[in-house]
Amino acid sequence: MTHKFDVAGLGNAIVDVLAPVEETFLLSHNIAKGVMTLIDEHRAASLESALTGTREVAGGSGANTMAGFASLGGKGVYQGRVKDDRLGNAFRESMKATGVHFTTPSVTGGPATAMCVVAVTPDEQRSMSTYLGAAREFSKHDLNASEIASSAILYIEGYLWDSDSAREACIEAMKIAHGAGNKVAFTMSDPFLIGRYGDEFRAMLDQIDILFANEDEARALFEVDSFDEVLQAARHHKGIKAMTRSEKGCVIARGNEVHVIDAWPVKKVLDTTGAGDQFAAGFLYALTHGRGLADCGKLAGLCAAEVISHYGARPEVSLRKLAADNGLI
Amino acid sequence: MTHKFDVAGLGNAIVDVLAPVEETFLLSHNIAKGVMTLIDEHRAASLESALTGTREVAGGSGANTMAGFASLGGKGVYQGRVKDDRLGNAFRESMKATGVHFTTPSVTGGPATAMCVVAVTPDEQRSMSTYLGAAREFSKHDLNASEIASSAILYIEGYLWDSDSAREACIEAMKIAHGAGNKVAFTMSDPFLIGRYGDEFRAMLDQIDILFANEDEARALFEVDSFDEVLQAARHHKGIKAMTRSEKGCVIARGNEVHVIDAWPVKKVLDTTGAGDQFAAGFLYALTHGRGLADCGKLAGLCAAEVISHYGARPEVSLRKLAADNGLI
Repeated sequence: MTHKFDVAGLGNAIVDVLAPVEETFLLSHNIAKGVMTLIDEHRAASLESALTGTREVAGGSGANTMAGFASLGGKGVYQGRVKDDRLGNAFRESMKATGVHFTTPSVTGGPATAMCVVAVTPDEQRSMSTYLGAAREFSKHDLNASEIASSAILYIEGYLWDSDSAREACIEAMKIAHGAGNKVAFTMSDPFLIGRYGDEFRAMLDQIDILFANEDEARALFEVDSFDEVLQAARHHKGIKAMTRSEKGCVIARGNEVHVIDAWPVKKVLDTTGAGDQFAAGFLYALTHGRGLADCGKLAGLCAAEVISHYGARPEVSLRKLAADNGLI
Repeated sequence: MTHKFDVAGLGNAIVDVLAPVEETFLLSHNIAKGVMTLIDEHRAASLESALTGTREVAGGSGANTMAGFASLGGKGVYQGRVKDDRLGNAFRESMKATGVHFTTPSVTGGPATAMCVVAVTPDEQRSMSTYLGAAREFSKHDLNASEIASSAILYIEGYLWDSDSAREACIEAMKIAHGAGNKVAFTMSDPFLIGRYGDEFRAMLDQIDILFANEDEARALFEVDSFDEVLQAARHHKGIKAMTRSEKGCVIARGNEVHVIDAWPVKKVLDTTGAGDQFAAGFLYALTHGRGLADCGKLAGLCAAEVISHYGARPEVSLRKLAADNGLI
């Protein structure tokens, strides 16, 4: 059947607030360097008011993937929860600019739109403070069942598991997708999530048609030590497993079909933020456009290579043109 | 059935003559730096007489593998052709010292025992000049059919293909091995060989039960560009394919069974000579001792890691103890 959309993505709708800071700023505001910390609304407001020269960029793992997917020319729709406030409107505008449909209505009450304060020190390290706000209250009432049913693939970011209502929404969305005969893709997002929800994820494996996981996540998920054990375990579940291995490239498995794809060469890796998001974008584009798994892995690698060769989690060039120039579209 | 030997190895029986030289020596003797060149008897003699402070070490790819195999505790027999001269006797003594059976009688006439002059410049580069001599005349008359029939695996180095009589001997040996219900292992040795004998190798693939090839060799053999295409092609032939990828580790395939094994960590790579030889040693040991393919790949990687962490193509420690210390035996 023909679908209105190729992919419907669900995720935490977050605006990144990038700010150049001195080392002393981290110290005076108790920000742990180089990692991501969850913060509350009060702290978010105080950080924001203390910063100058900030730049706002729509972010969020799933939204980044959908932006890349649209840059490739794919038809994508995004569902995520923002408030009708300045950042929420900025998020909405940015999604529109990328060409991704985003019809989830902004809420008028409750917590502010989610933001991630990215403090960039002179050594180019990124220290992140995330306030989930409105995104944490994403629930099944925010779902647009008709958009999900008319998308070939439903794509869910694992980060949503950290909110009870968002998790419930994801499970409902999976039912809608499968009920309509569509596929479900899921990205593990973070090894720490598997520490918290591993049993649930493992029980869910047979409902995931396309699983994205980096090597650390995959080892945690399958509770094994080596990558080869991951591969052997992965092949005993149904569906496609797309496992990323940083500079080692990726391994794609679907039952007895196994592909070992080298990383796309990158002159200089500047910032690995968003590598997994853009990998998923490329993979899903090729998959929804009739390509075999080897081609999916190759396009995925190219998109990841683009995003790690500059700062920021979204592509800076047209991925469609880049893919065409490299003979992959 | 029980075999008298685990592995019978066939190869060019060569003594390496290692010599520390100055850069000027390469220039005055027209030795191409960093590569291997075949030379004739006259040139071999003149090089040898010009060198001082030389050190003789039994070499040859297949012989190196058998030495490693014995170091692991495997029962191996080697067949190769040397002359009853000083280097021939040195080769014989060294094989005895490693514990490898070597019963091929020395010949009394004809060319001298093969030697490889390894000129080591102060920058640690190795420039090799190989005189094949007696080894080039290896023929089916040198085969010990009973030893081959009583070895679980016959192991052949591809270098033998450069001599018509040695190639004929290999084909005869494969018939003997298969006739006795044994397995045949083959190592591609060098991508240039595939340039010369590719069609023959490809036609032979279904008679090879265990194929060793590095990535360059495998791409040349299957006439493809990427490693993933190698993997897809390899899986359509019967038998085990053990494909080495330098720092990327190895991939082992047997039909639908695919293992992706990471390289064993090495503090500092000093000299990659012999990496493939010792990889084969470890793989064949694990395989002939009832281990699964993943374990074969792991032990192979450990043996390769040992040999590249020092100069020289043979292990400097007991591989058996090393494997035991790492829980692999």
